[in-house]
Amino acid sequence: MSAITVKPWLRRYEDYDEFYLSTEVVICGYGGAGASAALEARRVGADVLVLERASGGGGSTQMSSCEMYLGGSGGTKLQREVGLEDSTDNMIAYLSECFGAHGDPEKIRVYAEGAAEHFDWVESLGVPYKRAVYLERTVVPFSDESLLFTGNERAWPFNTVAQPVPRGHVPSKEGDEGGRIFMQALMATVEAEGALIKTDARVLGLIQDDSGRVRGVVARIDGMEVAIEASRGVILTAGGFVMNREMLARHAAHTVPFGEPYGNQWDMGDGIQMGMAAGGNAINMDQCFISFAFYPPAKLTYGLLVNNKGQRFINEDAYLARMGHYAGIQDKQEVYLLVQNEDFELPHYFDPPPPLVGTGDTVAEVEREAGLPIGSLQATVEYYNQHAAQGEDPLLHKSADWLKPIDKPPYALISMKPADVKYPLGENSGWLMFTLGGLETLADGEVLTPQGVVIPGLYAAGRTTAGLPRTAKGYASGMSVGDATFFGRRAGKQAASAAD
Amino acid sequence: MSAITVKPWLRRYEDYDEFYLSTEVVICGYGGAGASAALEARRVGADVLVLERASGGGGSTQMSSCEMYLGGSGGTKLQREVGLEDSTDNMIAYLSECFGAHGDPEKIRVYAEGAAEHFDWVESLGVPYKRAVYLERTVVPFSDESLLFTGNERAWPFNTVAQPVPRGHVPSKEGDEGGRIFMQALMATVEAEGALIKTDARVLGLIQDDSGRVRGVVARIDGMEVAIEASRGVILTAGGFVMNREMLARHAAHTVPFGEPYGNQWDMGDGIQMGMAAGGNAINMDQCFISFAFYPPAKLTYGLLVNNKGQRFINEDAYLARMGHYAGIQDKQEVYLLVQNEDFELPHYFDPPPPLVGTGDTVAEVEREAGLPIGSLQATVEYYNQHAAQGEDPLLHKSADWLKPIDKPPYALISMKPADVKYPLGENSGWLMFTLGGLETLADGEVLTPQGVVIPGLYAAGRTTAGLPRTAKGYASGMSVGDATFFGRRAGKQAASAAD
Repeated sequence: MSAITVKPWLRRYEDYDEFYLSTEVVICGYGGAGASAALEARRVGADVLVLERASGGGGSTQMSSCEMYLGGSGGTKLQREVGLEDSTDNMIAYLSECFGAHGDPEKIRVYAEGAAEHFDWVESLGVPYKRAVYLERTVVPFSDESLLFTGNERAWPFNTVAQPVPRGHVPSKEGDEGGRIFMQALMATVEAEGALIKTDARVLGLIQDDSGRVRGVVARIDGMEVAIEASRGVILTAGGFVMNREMLARHAAHTVPFGEPYGNQWDMGDGIQMGMAAGGNAINMDQCFISFAFYPPAKLTYGLLVNNKGQRFINEDAYLARMGHYAGIQDKQEVYLLVQNEDFELPHYFDPPPPLVGTGDTVAEVEREAGLPIGSLQATVEYYNQHAAQGEDPLLHKSADWLKPIDKPPYALISMKPADVKYPLGENSGWLMFTLGGLETLADGEVLTPQGVVIPGLYAAGRTTAGLPRTAKGYASGMSVGDATFFGRRAGKQAASAAD
Repeated sequence: MSAITVKPWLRRYEDYDEFYLSTEVVICGYGGAGASAALEARRVGADVLVLERASGGGGSTQMSSCEMYLGGSGGTKLQREVGLEDSTDNMIAYLSECFGAHGDPEKIRVYAEGAAEHFDWVESLGVPYKRAVYLERTVVPFSDESLLFTGNERAWPFNTVAQPVPRGHVPSKEGDEGGRIFMQALMATVEAEGALIKTDARVLGLIQDDSGRVRGVVARIDGMEVAIEASRGVILTAGGFVMNREMLARHAAHTVPFGEPYGNQWDMGDGIQMGMAAGGNAINMDQCFISFAFYPPAKLTYGLLVNNKGQRFINEDAYLARMGHYAGIQDKQEVYLLVQNEDFELPHYFDPPPPLVGTGDTVAEVEREAGLPIGSLQATVEYYNQHAAQGEDPLLHKSADWLKPIDKPPYALISMKPADVKYPLGENSGWLMFTLGGLETLADGEVLTPQGVVIPGLYAAGRTTAGLPRTAKGYASGMSVGDATFFGRRAGKQAASAAD
């Protein structure tokens, strides 16, 4: 059966007389979302086949530190055991502020209601969480605490609409190995419970019948193209599209000048394209996580982030992705961090460290050396200092904890321009990004058409969907893995429970 | 034949034994793009049927002032006859700066090469153009000159990469009736040359065969659902989707808080959705034209446009859509225009006029009354004045023509916030917008799949496509009608010339 040229991702069910294999649920992609879906589908008794294009499972979740953004319901077990409270309403208020018109109120509600239970589920897999909270400003913990602030909770305007509480849950291990720990535990459980896993198996397309119901997939397994029937449903969990340059240029062109893709090599948008070919709606496709973390060290937060007009544009205590969003809309993404001597240290995350584009004993010297408009940075610093001395930031509302006059020279201006932000040995540069657009789904994973109709037999989760996190502006670390595993589970359960 | 539930926009060719009607080219939508396509298709000898959902032709083009952005090739006839020169390279340089990574280099090139000839074609329809140029800053001419600046040509940074030349061509008539004049002339010619026009005819879906070729359409005509075969091709020219709130929320959510849709009632995205159902790629879907024109009167350009931090964020001599783009990314879209007494007049385009949120004999008074952060507007004005006195604007490079210190009280701060920008009798408010995303096409209108494969038999033009104009940031008036009619013609010719 050859593909229809113009719809390589779709086959017609009525053209098949027989199938290579028949099962109940087929899952396309064995990362965080797919593995979570597989486990729940098995647990309600369905036969499950997981197909993974790579040579092993794990996906982008395994590459991550596996923070999960969890809370609500009086607090997760971990939040409660370190003496913190949270509530579902508080979490909903926070998440609603995060995403504004981009947000999905139903997914926000369902997530906030279920996130605490989700933590119990993760822990039940044997993933270790230490009952300790890390309160410093960081991206991932460098010690073994398992709870930290990973978003804008303590920053304006979020601190005006919701009670700040840390919601980043990360497996307890020094260093950044949470993803491996979690995925190994999850995949071991999935396999122990009898899901069939096939790696090096690329799904080539969905099989849909003339009524619109998705009936299976075509995949290349061991070099052979085979048709596989899924009597209950197909779940697309194949990641986002950040590695697909063509898709980025067409859907998120604004990121092309500055983005450095962050994900696994198969985040090519296969799942999204298959879902669309079957009639699914891809939405929010321009939105991406964007980040350059100038911290740690946290003390750099005392600095001033300015654009090429010497203007501040975001409270510097905002979370890395929110800074990425606002920096991304500055002219040519030319942004810099001004720091005084007592707070100076180079940001930790870059290799080699970003350059100093101006230094001096006066702000005027720094400004001149950096080529900023004469007087612009001076005016910004003068205005800032005047108010910071009173513990106020009337312009951008940086929290009083991070306010003090910039008046102790020498000063340095650190470039955060995409070209100056470099990774391992300077081989790559740019601001890290991954995509937040994908198939529109209901909270149980059902894929919707543009008219809001459910496509029978088709489900999706993780970055193949437009899930909980919708913009960099409101992103907190742990929202993507949290979303993928949480809604992955729901999709697995729902597909497995569907009538044949 | 009932629609497949999940793909209401698509029918299967093989399911049809006979057709209500067979023709060569079917055009869906009788606005600027569709009428231009119809004329060219007829002129190469094809039988043409145009289906229009409304009770008459015209579309959004007829509602517009029918500016067309034309030039290149040594100049259009009109440019040359008023003594102006233009070149294709100059136009390409300008258009490339307009759209950056969002632009389509091939469409830019083809358009710049053919735009001067396109003017001759428009004039040959009998549309009157007066050989006179209007050089004031305006949106549409209030007198009868036919050539004007309609973009950022004279503003930074465009004036650093291309020689400014006016390219807005508008039918000669006092007032804003260009669209009616043009569409009446065009439609009369289309009909005289024998294209069949059917209004009150809604296209319900495309008919596609199993090889992927589009073979016709299903339409509701006179209350009856009928299948129509198109042996050479179907052209989708059904406008954008600005009237479709659901689509906006999913693809351009950022505009929801501030956008006021500008278009005709049937800009519902039908063409885009049909094209997608047949396997077409919809791209650039988040991008929109956005505008609040604080001018005329042009002298308001001497003012300072500031956000709710009292910061300037765009050179005030930029074109309305570019200001709309930059204003759209300011916090809550709270933007204001500060004007001194000698330049004060209320913007002309609003009804009732926007409110003054602060007035006073000092900037400090204005700032306090408007509730801006204390000292913020004062610092901005002080910095501006210091440099404006030297004829410079180091921050944002407003042209020297519009620079003078703001030091003659009283001062007024005019609100340009979306809620304060009102239209006829205050019934609507918001910044005008329409969509710039749609089907990805080649320069001859062929619709592409996400894999870049041409869908045989399917063409599109106008706002149903991602055409020449891709962002508000670089939009000039006349680019949408220019693009729709120019690429509409090409699509018509191409479809009509295709093999049966």
